[in-house]
Amino acid sequence: VESFESKLSHFRTVINERLNEVAVNAQPASFYEPVRYVLEGDGKRIRPILLILACQSVGGDINQCLNAAVAIELLHNFTLVHDDIMDHDDLRRGRITVHKKWDQATAILAGDGLVALAYQNLLKTESDRILEISKIFTEGIIDLCEGQALDKDFESRPEIELNEYMRMIEKKTARLLMIASEIGVIIGRGSQKEQSILGQFSLELGCAFQIRDDVLDIEHSSGKSYASDIRQKKKTILFVHALNHARQNDRDRLQKIYQKPEINSNDIETIRSIFETAGSLSFTLNQVETRINNARAALNKLRLTDAQHDLHELLNLILTRKN
Amino acid sequence: VESFESKLSHFRTVINERLNEVAVNAQPASFYEPVRYVLEGDGKRIRPILLILACQSVGGDINQCLNAAVAIELLHNFTLVHDDIMDHDDLRRGRITVHKKWDQATAILAGDGLVALAYQNLLKTESDRILEISKIFTEGIIDLCEGQALDKDFESRPEIELNEYMRMIEKKTARLLMIASEIGVIIGRGSQKEQSILGQFSLELGCAFQIRDDVLDIEHSSGKSYASDIRQKKKTILFVHALNHARQNDRDRLQKIYQKPEINSNDIETIRSIFETAGSLSFTLNQVETRINNARAALNKLRLTDAQHDLHELLNLILTRKN
Repeated sequence: VESFESKLSHFRTVINERLNEVAVNAQPASFYEPVRYVLEGDGKRIRPILLILACQSVGGDINQCLNAAVAIELLHNFTLVHDDIMDHDDLRRGRITVHKKWDQATAILAGDGLVALAYQNLLKTESDRILEISKIFTEGIIDLCEGQALDKDFESRPEIELNEYMRMIEKKTARLLMIASEIGVIIGRGSQKEQSILGQFSLELGCAFQIRDDVLDIEHSSGKSYASDIRQKKKTILFVHALNHARQNDRDRLQKIYQKPEINSNDIETIRSIFETAGSLSFTLNQVETRINNARAALNKLRLTDAQHDLHELLNLILTRKN
Repeated sequence: VESFESKLSHFRTVINERLNEVAVNAQPASFYEPVRYVLEGDGKRIRPILLILACQSVGGDINQCLNAAVAIELLHNFTLVHDDIMDHDDLRRGRITVHKKWDQATAILAGDGLVALAYQNLLKTESDRILEISKIFTEGIIDLCEGQALDKDFESRPEIELNEYMRMIEKKTARLLMIASEIGVIIGRGSQKEQSILGQFSLELGCAFQIRDDVLDIEHSSGKSYASDIRQKKKTILFVHALNHARQNDRDRLQKIYQKPEINSNDIETIRSIFETAGSLSFTLNQVETRINNARAALNKLRLTDAQHDLHELLNLILTRKN
């Protein structure tokens, strides 16, 4: 039996080959060069892998769904390029971002092009349900935009409710994993029930992933640079929970620190201790655990196949990463 | 018989009603408010009208193609929002541009959303050829991106060949008119020949429109602010022709003026006289005439219907506008 690692490695090779062909030799260079640059980046290719595994789990094969898998990765890369402009980020996957390496106009256009190239690949899919697939894909993009807008809104809003945070990460992070699975199931000729179960699995997986990402920010041993979310005053789930559940004077301290022009190392330790006292850290770890259990429970509703086992492995892989 | 003007006015009302519904009451406001703002602008709705007329000219009706017509207008508005960011334009249709009224992040996201909303409406089209329609739409977006990239490239390049200029305006301006017609014909169940003829008509129409727009820039009586293209150092067809056909010392003067930080009124008159001496103005007017004749000749290959007559009227309307 092929190991899960070698299977993933094979998927990544196939996906990367296809991504490298997307804009090969195309002109004008001012448009396609930044597109190629983005696609050469060292991505984990989680979304297309999820799509392929979902397709396989209902009896489909990789050749049927590879165009759609490539489309999902192109769409993900579009969001990275445009989000990096909006968030003024200089680095992505250890490389200079497109708008820094070239300029904003180039990055806006490269992102726009990636959306069109995503549809171009998606529409190559041979399926009698291509219309439904395209609609799911399109509603996914609309949700991504709404999620990004909510995330930007949160930056300037002092108070966020926990359910608002959850809605934001569902749209901004989890939705793309969900549509990847749903499209994989449809291409693999899975049932409505399988589509719904694997969609739910991926939604829970995506939320667990994003919430865990918030926790990694304040873990010294993680691959992320320590407390960078706090330094950027991001409204993580820890912050949102503490703001709604800490004692009044701790809430005031938290708000005051987030209003400072710059957050220093003392502030970070203050914030960490507020998170712990308010129970925000244990609450958040609990949320991750709950979401993982929900995801596993969804998977267990499917009949047992190798591919289902692979999806469990993918979940373990995604949720034990250190960066 | 209903007059062409009242027909157009009816189309515009129907299209605007649908555009106003696209984002009505939708949340979050930070995403949908700029989208609504853009769609409320006073557009001529040329592209959706062309799509409807093309559909009618092959026997289809407006109810079949309205979703696609709305999609084409949404796509056009996406290009306006993103192009305005890239070109640092402050005004559009007499109103402040999105990135000026809000900010760049908001405008990037509004543009991204408009693409997704365009597909959302396109995919509502009831046609057994929806896959083909979606592919044409997608290739159109890729061409728009390539055209915009070429246009930006030209800003920093001293020399442009005439055929490069033509390729740029075909992709950036004419292609969207072409896909509007092609999609209209397909929805109206026209033949391959009708699709090809009306596509050609629209390509020629689009080029005539763009070339004429370059001429209007140096006509005092036009609605455009006088010589604004020259002031912005745009590589219009007049400039490109003069650069390739004026006497050497006139070419040098032209290049020198375009290298100045600011172009004054004397410079503008110098440039005008160089355009006239080099025959650039008459060449350009000739090009407009040729393109119009090509467009009319294409139309005349179709069987005579009321809708074909309307397309002639639309051409007259577009190519006699003063702004």
